[in-house]
Amino acid sequence: MPLVSLLTDFGVTDTYVGQMKAALLRVAPSATLVDLTHAVPAQDVRAGAFLLWTAVEAFPPGSFHLAVVDPGVGSGRRAVAVRSRRGDVLVGPDNGLLLPALEQLGGQVAAVELTEPAYWGPARSRTFHGRDLFAPVVGHLITGVPLEQVGPPLARLEAPFRFPAPEQENGLPLGEVLHVDAYGNLITNLPSGQLPARFRVRIGLTVVEGAPHSHYEAVPPGELLALVGSSGLLEISAREGSAASVLGAERGERVHIEPA
Amino acid sequence: MPLVSLLTDFGVTDTYVGQMKAALLRVAPSATLVDLTHAVPAQDVRAGAFLLWTAVEAFPPGSFHLAVVDPGVGSGRRAVAVRSRRGDVLVGPDNGLLLPALEQLGGQVAAVELTEPAYWGPARSRTFHGRDLFAPVVGHLITGVPLEQVGPPLARLEAPFRFPAPEQENGLPLGEVLHVDAYGNLITNLPSGQLPARFRVRIGLTVVEGAPHSHYEAVPPGELLALVGSSGLLEISAREGSAASVLGAERGERVHIEPA
Amino acid sequence: MPLVSLLTDFGVTDTYVGQMKAALLRVAPSATLVDLTHAVPAQDVRAGAFLLWTAVEAFPPGSFHLAVVDPGVGSGRRAVAVRSRRGDVLVGPDNGLLLPALEQLGGQVAAVELTEPAYWGPARSRTFHGRDLFAPVVGHLITGVPLEQVGPPLARLEAPFRFPAPEQENGLPLGEVLHVDAYGNLITNLPSGQLPARFRVRIGLTVVEGAPHSHYEAVPPGELLALVGSSGLLEISAREGSAASVLGAERGERVHIEPA
Repeated sequence: MPLVSLLTDFGVTDTYVGQMKAALLRVAPSATLVDLTHAVPAQDVRAGAFLLWTAVEAFPPGSFHLAVVDPGVGSGRRAVAVRSRRGDVLVGPDNGLLLPALEQLGGQVAAVELTEPAYWGPARSRTFHGRDLFAPVVGHLITGVPLEQVGPPLARLEAPFRFPAPEQENGLPLGEVLHVDAYGNLITNLPSGQLPARFRVRIGLTVVEGAPHSHYEAVPPGELLALVGSSGLLEISAREGSAASVLGAERGERVHIEPA
Repeated sequence: MPLVSLLTDFGVTDTYVGQMKAALLRVAPSATLVDLTHAVPAQDVRAGAFLLWTAVEAFPPGSFHLAVVDPGVGSGRRAVAVRSRRGDVLVGPDNGLLLPALEQLGGQVAAVELTEPAYWGPARSRTFHGRDLFAPVVGHLITGVPLEQVGPPLARLEAPFRFPAPEQENGLPLGEVLHVDAYGNLITNLPSGQLPARFRVRIGLTVVEGAPHSHYEAVPPGELLALVGSSGLLEISAREGSAASVLGAERGERVHIEPA
Repeated sequence: MPLVSLLTDFGVTDTYVGQMKAALLRVAPSATLVDLTHAVPAQDVRAGAFLLWTAVEAFPPGSFHLAVVDPGVGSGRRAVAVRSRRGDVLVGPDNGLLLPALEQLGGQVAAVELTEPAYWGPARSRTFHGRDLFAPVVGHLITGVPLEQVGPPLARLEAPFRFPAPEQENGLPLGEVLHVDAYGNLITNLPSGQLPARFRVRIGLTVVEGAPHSHYEAVPPGELLALVGSSGLLEISAREGSAASVLGAERGERVHIEPA
């Protein structure tokens, strides 16, 4: 039975995540659930999309990914399930949350709108589709119900936003910070393949020399460095510290690549 | 094998939850554990009771619920296991924590005091019955030991508190906030069945018109709304915001239902 | 299949823990994973070592323990797996993190350096060995690959620090605070076996009389007490409060045992 990853903005101080898992396990008692995170900032679909995008590749092909950051729950927004070229299935609201991950997994092969109530749960709230709609549908899908059976086909998902692509500046890439992680690392939109062999990084008035660094201990404690992180993207870090605090930088901050 | 839900005030910065799970899995290695939450405010039995009450129904009948918010651990307070009419078994301290959930599941069919040390764990601390008493007992129960074997029968659980029932005011219900969730939603003690078809809600000096709302996007961003939430109770929310912050409201705040 | 405990400083707001679990389950899909904590303060190897040390004994002998607090990732620090006398296997960076837990489990029987890339994962970052090296190796070990196969033998682990042993003062033990838990309990380095039958505790200018207490309700609400906690170590607590806040005490604070 495939793995099921879970990503939401439900937090872990309430019982919403547990209720959603119960609704899934009620249908598929032997499912293996893996929490990605439930600390997506409340209703921040873009942050959720980034986190999902950078996490799905670690899962074996054919995994399921249940993601719920859903400010439009109960409104006309669609509920969807989509199969990727790699064979993974993503399930959640059709609000842009799933799209970057879907593209990371090779793009769409098939998609359906989840309109078939036979595969929903016994409770039918207007505000908690994670528990009452998405989780039961995932339970049915991983126990063998074909995707085509849980609802009618959809041509494509909504694309209400895109992560900004790197620009060019003096023949070198110009990027921006897509995510600040809990260590204070600044994760940019610059993939390793677009970076020169040696370079320096400028953020605001600060310049980080000697990039790319090979690891954190390549600089003295507290100093800034720039390396290709675990997502294959350039990250700005501070050794044994927080680059976000040192630089006062947030999501959207411009990151300039300059000659070494 | 039935699901086991877990709810405590242990937090997740220490290893107490992990130790408790290890003690359960040592007895029942193939158990499926589902965290409800471990962020109940420290020693807040009422908050734990609310969270457990509103979560158990999402689990399949026959599930086990291990709950530990236990300021009296090591004192004379009893340790108990109780079977509900629906078939679920709740295990924890007899301090009021389990009672609302038990009633939600149909009330008590049988209860025992956990005095039989043959079903406890190898460690015997005075301060960590979650690991040393409750979890091993749950392990034995889910692998088939009858409830009657883990201790002598108990007529009924202690009832040191009750959640306040709705009152009446001018022929309409008058409620109060039972819980503030992580989104800042104010969850009241007013079940949907006691509400008129159309009404307005007054909290302090603020009035929310147009209730019940059908979903969050029924009002503009930042505005207050009132809807029946996923527990079947009236909730006051702010679209893409926190009603608790907007209103400065806390647990116990009065919620007036007024004619539309 | 043995249990696998997980302890990191990855936090739960990012997806790093989920990615690490996916990498392990990709190799060993039916593994049972138990989170100890992922909230070790960032890069605080000593805090991680304390938490791991006090948690491992709750697991059944033969369990695996994957621990990653790894400021030196990507540098020359070794990656290791070590089998204890009790039969547990600990896997992580060779920076002192594993050593107290290893000694708690009876000391080293065999150790290897994880240099055999055949057992690593498909991604090969320099900064995320939790996902790319440690987790896949644990996956292979729990599915039966012998320890000797994942790398060459190591005589012993590095010991860059030790937890301070209790000292003596006027013929009685003098200890210190090793850890402050989420309740604000001060956990000392004083094992129960070194304490007199009756004593008082002095921390700074504050004296706690009547120790050891048997349980929290042995004193009035808000008052300090001292009892042997669930790790077998003396702890200073405040009933229904935080001893750390009451005393303004932190890790390293001296704890004097005095005649009753």
